[in-house]
Amino acid sequence: MTHPPMAPTTPLPIARETGELRAAITAWRAEGLRVGLVPTMGALHDGHLSLVRLALEKADRVVASVFVNPTQFGPTEDFAAYPREESSDATKLARAGANLLYTPAVETMYPEGFSTTVTVDGVSRGLCGDRRPGHFQGVATVVTKLLMRCLPDVAVFGEKDYQQLQVLKRLALDLDIPVEVLGAPIVRETDGLAMSSRNAYLSPEERDVAPTLNRTLRRVAADILGGADVSDCLEWGMGELLKGGFSSVDYLELRDATTLTPLDEAPEGEARLLVAAKLGKTRLIDNIAL
Amino acid sequence: MTHPPMAPTTPLPIARETGELRAAITAWRAEGLRVGLVPTMGALHDGHLSLVRLALEKADRVVASVFVNPTQFGPTEDFAAYPREESSDATKLARAGANLLYTPAVETMYPEGFSTTVTVDGVSRGLCGDRRPGHFQGVATVVTKLLMRCLPDVAVFGEKDYQQLQVLKRLALDLDIPVEVLGAPIVRETDGLAMSSRNAYLSPEERDVAPTLNRTLRRVAADILGGADVSDCLEWGMGELLKGGFSSVDYLELRDATTLTPLDEAPEGEARLLVAAKLGKTRLIDNIAL
Repeated sequence: MTHPPMAPTTPLPIARETGELRAAITAWRAEGLRVGLVPTMGALHDGHLSLVRLALEKADRVVASVFVNPTQFGPTEDFAAYPREESSDATKLARAGANLLYTPAVETMYPEGFSTTVTVDGVSRGLCGDRRPGHFQGVATVVTKLLMRCLPDVAVFGEKDYQQLQVLKRLALDLDIPVEVLGAPIVRETDGLAMSSRNAYLSPEERDVAPTLNRTLRRVAADILGGADVSDCLEWGMGELLKGGFSSVDYLELRDATTLTPLDEAPEGEARLLVAAKLGKTRLIDNIAL
Repeated sequence: MTHPPMAPTTPLPIARETGELRAAITAWRAEGLRVGLVPTMGALHDGHLSLVRLALEKADRVVASVFVNPTQFGPTEDFAAYPREESSDATKLARAGANLLYTPAVETMYPEGFSTTVTVDGVSRGLCGDRRPGHFQGVATVVTKLLMRCLPDVAVFGEKDYQQLQVLKRLALDLDIPVEVLGAPIVRETDGLAMSSRNAYLSPEERDVAPTLNRTLRRVAADILGGADVSDCLEWGMGELLKGGFSSVDYLELRDATTLTPLDEAPEGEARLLVAAKLGKTRLIDNIAL
């Protein structure tokens, strides 16, 4: 007895060389089509696929890139262990409607003699910028390169990496890169946990604890909006996370939604509540709008 | 009696806003034309105009930008005093065949909140990089911005700023900016002095001394090629400059022509002999191929 065939999926064209990528984009441009780019590090989940869908609303053709960028990992971080799943990524991207997967080799991104870095000051400070030295420089440099290789009309990033999104918006504005940088809302599991490729690292016990992160964020945000003292709320939130089973809290902070300036009282304009905490060896981040 | 009329010159269109620049370029692109960019800081001389002519050989339309970039001047350098001569610059550019002068205001290049820098390591080290801290970071950042605003097929820079040229070639390669960065040979006065906007600072006495710079370079290069010891030749050259009337020598060095790695013996591949020296308050630079 044979298994029934899988539902057919159009195979997604894969470009590994910049020449192939540019040829595809040149052909689309010649037809007058708008191009969107969704840069990812692969190990795709529904959060990533929501970026592809948003890009398809803003552009006629969407390139998803998969590149696990060594320069944004610290020496003690999980670059080697970071999950790589090209075949299933390609299938997911095709189903989400992407038109091309661009997945360059590390050697073509950083050939011998490579010596340029892009640094975004200001919004890179504090939060993950302090905890992961060099991380946002690595992100800003690789995203500049991907934008230059693709020259898209729009590039979509997830709000889950909220500080990264603000860094990249600032980058495109400052360097006059002719692209619209768009953020897409966080996609969550039913229990509120923000989707992340790193969730795969969690043990079953840790997975049970993980939703405390978002639950605590929502409670702290409600209390601040209700008029409670900001620093009291943040302190209470950090205690909740540790009590709930997190091993440490990197930060829980209220910041201006665009400049990421720290706020110590209830905001007048848009604000964002951001958290990073460790659950065993896994570092989880989350954030919500106030 | 009236003076005879000047030879008529087609007035050069001037764009001050990025929108105007991009509109002109979009129109050229729609005609299938290739675009060249010649970034300058104005106070144009025949050296700059040779860049425009080279750009016209490589592209159908040429934009010359004039922007005295504050971020590439050190705190003790001559930013405020740097000559600004827009009207005569525009006339010279029109005569050389440029199609557009782009001259943005400082506030539109670096608006409030600007926080991004582009750094090219390696080729930026030593030579002018050591003597002018932050200089090449300022150059790399502003040139990235100009390239992004113009998106030219080719950008032309003078070999007089030889280290700058190598920095910008490395920058475009590393960031995958889709542009060909071309160097144009140094244009010299009849006595060998490399043309420079800063030559205008020289007193008549200093102007008499200035050609010693190129004369010494040529003599040192000939001696090295003739088999003399490199460090002896460089030491002799520095002595000649001081004896000839220069007040100090920042550097006189033999370097690999592309990587700018210092060479302490006669080169096997292409090499460059580079010098910077002060004549009173004016710092002059020059270089020649070996």
